[in-house]
Amino acid sequence: MTTEPPAIDSTASAAAGLVRVRIRLDFGGDARIGPGKIELLEAIARDGSISAAGRSMGMSYRRAWTLVDALNRMFSEPAVTAAVGGAHGGGASLTPLGERLVADYRAIESESRALANRALAVVLDRLVRPDASDRPATEA
Amino acid sequence: MTTEPPAIDSTASAAAGLVRVRIRLDFGGDARIGPGKIELLEAIARDGSISAAGRSMGMSYRRAWTLVDALNRMFSEPAVTAAVGGAHGGGASLTPLGERLVADYRAIESESRALANRALAVVLDRLVRPDASDRPATEA
Repeated sequence: MTTEPPAIDSTASAAAGLVRVRIRLDFGGDARIGPGKIELLEAIARDGSISAAGRSMGMSYRRAWTLVDALNRMFSEPAVTAAVGGAHGGGASLTPLGERLVADYRAIESESRALANRALAVVLDRLVRPDASDRPATEA
Repeated sequence: MTTEPPAIDSTASAAAGLVRVRIRLDFGGDARIGPGKIELLEAIARDGSISAAGRSMGMSYRRAWTLVDALNRMFSEPAVTAAVGGAHGGGASLTPLGERLVADYRAIESESRALANRALAVVLDRLVRPDASDRPATEA
């Protein structure tokens, strides 16, 4: 079995449809949620800590904390609860609202991708593929 | 009749639904289309010139030209045709593909906004409104 070096973006795009769609929700004022905050929430749920989540995204603790603080001021309930204290901060987890934000965002993203792939049929047909080797060889 | 200074973003959001959705299409490789390129295409269609379109968006001619060039390399047909020459460049207009890109993008954006407003009912109910005066007074 020969293994080619994976072209991660192309493979993911091919698996999920021809277009990836990234969405940014703008609630007015400074209340905005995009892929960065959602990925951070997912990382906090996975790692159980704001600092570990930020580190996994190549982000300083200060930056991760600032994003969590913005999310927690955006709604009448917090999205993340964190135990205060310790040299590196306590554990953190998502509240039900935080979990719902992630689930709703990913559902909207997925539906938007499906409708984009339907709407863009003509455009996609004229796309210059940067890497023709991604196409199935059986088409020849 | 008293006229309050208009809060432009909030008014636009209220008119169109509670959430604005900005989308970015990622076709793989460097082929990406987001609100900036689409607004530039719309400005070119309106102003008939790349330089005037860029200027209306506070963008240098070089920056506007670079975005147009990227769009024109992305598909097997150009999105913008420009007459070459003159001190400030000739006139420019959208090709049928360019017009389709704008129309498809705005349709996807509009449908995504509609589904986001449906999906986010619980989240929106907990949103801290930055400017409570935007709410209709008749709710009291």
